[in-house]
Amino acid sequence: MRDVAIIGVGLTKMGELWEQSMRDLYVEAALGAIDDSGVDHIDSMYVGCMSGGLFTGQEHIGPLMADYLGQNPIPSTRVESACASGGLALRMGLIDVASGMNDIVLVGGVEKMTDVDGDDATYALATASDQEWEAFNGVTFPGLYAMIAVAHMNKYGTTSEQMAAVAVKNHDNGSKNPNAQFPMKITVDAVLNSVMVADPLHILDCSPVTDGAAACILCPAEMAAKLTGKQPVKILGSGHATGTIALHDREDFTTLEAVKGAAGQAYEMSGKGPGDIDVCEVHDCFTIAEIAVTEDLGFFEKGKGGPAAADGATAIGGKIPINTSGGLKSKGHPVGASGVAQAVEIVKQLRGDADERQVEGAKVGMTQNMGGTGASSVVHIMEVL
Amino acid sequence: MRDVAIIGVGLTKMGELWEQSMRDLYVEAALGAIDDSGVDHIDSMYVGCMSGGLFTGQEHIGPLMADYLGQNPIPSTRVESACASGGLALRMGLIDVASGMNDIVLVGGVEKMTDVDGDDATYALATASDQEWEAFNGVTFPGLYAMIAVAHMNKYGTTSEQMAAVAVKNHDNGSKNPNAQFPMKITVDAVLNSVMVADPLHILDCSPVTDGAAACILCPAEMAAKLTGKQPVKILGSGHATGTIALHDREDFTTLEAVKGAAGQAYEMSGKGPGDIDVCEVHDCFTIAEIAVTEDLGFFEKGKGGPAAADGATAIGGKIPINTSGGLKSKGHPVGASGVAQAVEIVKQLRGDADERQVEGAKVGMTQNMGGTGASSVVHIMEVL
Repeated sequence: MRDVAIIGVGLTKMGELWEQSMRDLYVEAALGAIDDSGVDHIDSMYVGCMSGGLFTGQEHIGPLMADYLGQNPIPSTRVESACASGGLALRMGLIDVASGMNDIVLVGGVEKMTDVDGDDATYALATASDQEWEAFNGVTFPGLYAMIAVAHMNKYGTTSEQMAAVAVKNHDNGSKNPNAQFPMKITVDAVLNSVMVADPLHILDCSPVTDGAAACILCPAEMAAKLTGKQPVKILGSGHATGTIALHDREDFTTLEAVKGAAGQAYEMSGKGPGDIDVCEVHDCFTIAEIAVTEDLGFFEKGKGGPAAADGATAIGGKIPINTSGGLKSKGHPVGASGVAQAVEIVKQLRGDADERQVEGAKVGMTQNMGGTGASSVVHIMEVL
Repeated sequence: MRDVAIIGVGLTKMGELWEQSMRDLYVEAALGAIDDSGVDHIDSMYVGCMSGGLFTGQEHIGPLMADYLGQNPIPSTRVESACASGGLALRMGLIDVASGMNDIVLVGGVEKMTDVDGDDATYALATASDQEWEAFNGVTFPGLYAMIAVAHMNKYGTTSEQMAAVAVKNHDNGSKNPNAQFPMKITVDAVLNSVMVADPLHILDCSPVTDGAAACILCPAEMAAKLTGKQPVKILGSGHATGTIALHDREDFTTLEAVKGAAGQAYEMSGKGPGDIDVCEVHDCFTIAEIAVTEDLGFFEKGKGGPAAADGATAIGGKIPINTSGGLKSKGHPVGASGVAQAVEIVKQLRGDADERQVEGAKVGMTQNMGGTGASSVVHIMEVL
């Protein structure tokens, strides 16, 4: 397999973007990445999107985006793994370049979520769970993560204050990100006093519904330096694993086996371990998710993710800065785009281009993207080339 | 890139299968392919599915299928390109094995279309067109292909009788396929006297709405002989191209540029040409599609596809047997599965296992799968190893 590098990134504003359709968003991010990379053509495209069908009445998303980007007849493939669709699109682009099939590959992620009302968005998101055994019976995503939170609290003593600390930290980071949907700083009290969505998760424990898109340009590492004026970032490791789709099939709600599996593959492929990671974007769709994931990635002992967040270990300047972009929580969570947006942030960090939220001296970064309640996860480890 | 072979195939019955859910169908086809191949494990999975969200309220289809097949934690990726989802899943599996990332890869396709009513199925299928410029304004898929048919009739003199001949030939082939949804033989008069759906397309010019699944096992060609007792089939060439999503953006409705592009890539990669192909499955979602595609693949001069079908050139025993399985028209068209089902038929033909519909001495086969009105197409060329 050939080594692969990221040589350009693009990101839209995140938010309730009524002036832009799904295709507009994708094209904006893609043109940003193309411009950033300096390439003069693309050989192949991947598009991560969770549910164009339910959110916008549009499938056949690969050729649509190639067409609107003015790139047909090149191959364009849409990849779906619920909220991990973007991370998986990145992995498919990596495999495409690594195989030798294509050289310059555009990987994008997009979701247009606000053209439907709240009930329809909740229904669409629940299709990431087991429709026959979970969604059909009425449970929503906040409800499923609330069950994970209750189990984590019971088993490890994790508290609502610790979960709130995750939200406070991510909004603090997001306040330094001009693309963030909710860049306001918040307090632990504000989280604890916000409306309860699914006990113990308050609305400020939950990531928002977001329109947005993100994109990266990949190419063979040996070609990277010739193609771009920017610092190329090499993808050292990639992991992709699955777990049970339904919570009730798990031995333990508090451990996300797909996250552990994907991270194990990425660590092995890269030759790195948790102690080598300087900065990491994780899938904080709910505050409890960030706590469980930082444990399952090996940054903290199982059960210690909550205290670590409350103690500042995951803040910029802490032991392992997590979600410097603001994460899904503050930056926003356009589900099919989030995995690619994570890679955009890590590339910026490793280039030293993260402005006020820069982690000093960051050389190795990681992204962890997750679908549903963790039935799929994709992990990448990257390093400046 | 490593050479890749297909070493096992599986196919469900096609039809209105009220006793089986989407996951049941996928698992049945996958177990069939695993059993046929003799492998004792799988490293990675791909699932082609057009719209689990709109047809069944289920996304996150990759991990769901891995879970129900008892295969988590292996990576499982859902790929979508409307009705070309299955063919594209096959190509992604090919790239995965070719890259060296994984050795034994299960490629499946599935669609469960009959759990919604006819209006909802028509809506879901229309999401393969341009939602903003075509579907939103009320045009359905039969309407779009009717426009292609009218253009082909006007430009080349193609007749309703020639289109009907395609349906008659495919039903004749399908009558020899025990998995076919509509295995009855029909006549040209029956087609011409059947109800008009979108002038000039009668209902017997249209493929049906179908539940079904298909699967293949891929592995490196050099590993193939050791893993299976069956005749391995090597994938010599793969092509994937896109075209404009909307018909109104095309210079000429009668030529499917994505089909020409994908075929050109597959011919070049394989070193074969149209004259080398012994048997071919094409995307006959409507009879006019088979006529245009057999021209764009290079089997017949442009405009001669209609007369060729009427003259028996595409029948078993003719110049180039097309859709020996019965095609989408008679075998059935579970949209996300059809591309994989095409590969199942070609593998059976090249093994000499196609029973009453066997093309004598077939050594080189081709599959051509298409999304929407041809905004995406995937072509594969295969040969006995």
